[in-house]
Amino acid sequence: MPSNTKNLALTFSKVPTHTPVVGEHVTVEDKGPFDLDQPLPSGDDKGLILETLYASLDPYLRGLLRDPSVKSYMPALPLGSPITAGTLSRVLRSNLDGYVEGDVVRLPLPIQQYNLYVHKAPKKGEPEWQKPFKVPNPDDASLDIRHYLGALGMPGLTAYSSLYEIGKPKKGETIVVSSAAGAVGQLVGQLAKHEGLTVFGSVGTDDKLDFIINELGFDGGWNYKKEKSTKEVIVRLVKEHRRKKGEDVSDEPGVGTEGIDIFYDNVGGEQLDGAIETLNMFGRIVECGQISQYNLPPSDRYPITNTFLTIVKRLTMTGFMVGDANMGAKHSQAHVENVSQWLKDGSFKAKIHEDVGIEKGPEAFVGMLKGDNFGKAILKVKV
Amino acid sequence: MPSNTKNLALTFSKVPTHTPVVGEHVTVEDKGPFDLDQPLPSGDDKGLILETLYASLDPYLRGLLRDPSVKSYMPALPLGSPITAGTLSRVLRSNLDGYVEGDVVRLPLPIQQYNLYVHKAPKKGEPEWQKPFKVPNPDDASLDIRHYLGALGMPGLTAYSSLYEIGKPKKGETIVVSSAAGAVGQLVGQLAKHEGLTVFGSVGTDDKLDFIINELGFDGGWNYKKEKSTKEVIVRLVKEHRRKKGEDVSDEPGVGTEGIDIFYDNVGGEQLDGAIETLNMFGRIVECGQISQYNLPPSDRYPITNTFLTIVKRLTMTGFMVGDANMGAKHSQAHVENVSQWLKDGSFKAKIHEDVGIEKGPEAFVGMLKGDNFGKAILKVKV
Repeated sequence: MPSNTKNLALTFSKVPTHTPVVGEHVTVEDKGPFDLDQPLPSGDDKGLILETLYASLDPYLRGLLRDPSVKSYMPALPLGSPITAGTLSRVLRSNLDGYVEGDVVRLPLPIQQYNLYVHKAPKKGEPEWQKPFKVPNPDDASLDIRHYLGALGMPGLTAYSSLYEIGKPKKGETIVVSSAAGAVGQLVGQLAKHEGLTVFGSVGTDDKLDFIINELGFDGGWNYKKEKSTKEVIVRLVKEHRRKKGEDVSDEPGVGTEGIDIFYDNVGGEQLDGAIETLNMFGRIVECGQISQYNLPPSDRYPITNTFLTIVKRLTMTGFMVGDANMGAKHSQAHVENVSQWLKDGSFKAKIHEDVGIEKGPEAFVGMLKGDNFGKAILKVKV
Repeated sequence: MPSNTKNLALTFSKVPTHTPVVGEHVTVEDKGPFDLDQPLPSGDDKGLILETLYASLDPYLRGLLRDPSVKSYMPALPLGSPITAGTLSRVLRSNLDGYVEGDVVRLPLPIQQYNLYVHKAPKKGEPEWQKPFKVPNPDDASLDIRHYLGALGMPGLTAYSSLYEIGKPKKGETIVVSSAAGAVGQLVGQLAKHEGLTVFGSVGTDDKLDFIINELGFDGGWNYKKEKSTKEVIVRLVKEHRRKKGEDVSDEPGVGTEGIDIFYDNVGGEQLDGAIETLNMFGRIVECGQISQYNLPPSDRYPITNTFLTIVKRLTMTGFMVGDANMGAKHSQAHVENVSQWLKDGSFKAKIHEDVGIEKGPEAFVGMLKGDNFGKAILKVKV
């Protein structure tokens, strides 16, 4: 006897050329009916009937909304499909060993109210599938489970692994983090403070600026919407900070000195250009993202004309993704253990921006791309 | 009794904004009289009276011809001074232990006919100065001494150390070398062949293209003055090479596959842009130079708009100079031993472009900046 329900989904409806428009490129559609009582997979295949609690909204998703003829590192999403992202879901029914009704699992799934997760039996000679990550103690009040999509999830591991692997922070150095109030930036800045660096951040509102300085403990920062020149603002912040420490800052700085040692890039464009100008000798650029460029056609992209400074100042610029060898997997245990502890004892903070209801999905998604979110962007699917 | 002589010098006469003009920004001036019989340094200081045989002309020298208010990694050359560069000089008189009349030394010196080299006694607590490099067996017919300014000198060590340290070549990979017939490019390409890579090069004339393929053994290349799109030419060369090996090249390549693994950049600009487009996953960019950009004011520099591909394809771009820690010094012994041997046994070639006479200095210098030289640019000072 089927128990059919609607299944509203955040849907990719039209290929955007610039920033997607709510209701045009991203919409809410009913992908149902979804039968809550449908048979679970049979034979060696097992499965879970899941109700989505939360979905993670992250900048990389923009790259999936493209014409399939444009190649990239992940296949384009087929038009008309739900956007697939990291989710936290409640198990409603299960025939998969170790998973029972009420468990909360983290899985990449279509952002829709209900999903059937099929855990395939391995084919001959193939390794067994990794089982879904089960949130430990989902009702533990001391740790908000939503962090498992943010500081304790993919964005957190991204921050943790790349800061150490590529940024190579050393006590006494100076770092600039762009998109500093975002899911990745918040953690990068707090980790850098933990390692004894001077930390500056760029954000898009005065509230966020106040937050990174007064709540996260950054040494300074700026609202990029109010500052025309990233180069000038970094030079000024570094100088002010040195003056506060009682240093003499009257001399003209030499080339590649009295600037920054690490630029953690989430933004690209003018901020990357300005950071290259202000990096010190042997500075490192951690290329995590370029959200300012993703919504632009090639002709509108910001022109970088100072790459020759990589030679003058012996800079290294390195792109990565969290799934690469030597990145996420290498650091995942230390990441979860340390950051869980620091969140619980209050020494780290991880602000979450939550939009409520699958109907709000398109607004939440486009808002995240525009930087309207204040903290890790999460869509609460089950209200 | 003074024995005075003229002392013609290649002189920096006016700050250029674009490519220097012969007779305007670079001139020949008599810095004499030079007294060949002047007293050698006395007390603990020692010295050499030197007659310049050859001077090395290299792209980095362009950076010295600037307004001193523009900071860079080397101080600006004072207006009216001779250009200082690597030279090979014959010892005319000496009171420095271990150096006698007739020896040939390599030293950075003003490009002029005669020089007094003073070897200062170390001040208390300071380390002793390194003595000038003495060319072994300067009359050995099996090894042209001019190589000590090229393949066996700074450009050669630049190529050798950076290819291994930054390029990390692996057998079976593909490399593109820009300015491939130049002092650095020739050696990079031959070293890469030695390591079992497929090697393509860009050059500025058809003669040079013929040379790198038929004399240096490159697998292919192009004349950048005839090809508008570096991206297209690299895609084509890689495809042709795979087809020749009998591979099926009918499929559309995926992202970051079927391109190149290393781009050795001497040129910057459009070639860097095109190389970024065609680099494979985890590709490396060795930033050695950007000769196409040095003669341009900032507003005319080539706009790079595809740095986000460093993330998509996990690229690393690293600038360096040969004097950096872990670069030249680490490899200098292997470099000289191996490359001397390979030049002597004919397995490596190092083409030299020689202009003759100090009077030809300005033409030779500007020609080198424009890429008119075919091989390592050297000025023969003593005719």
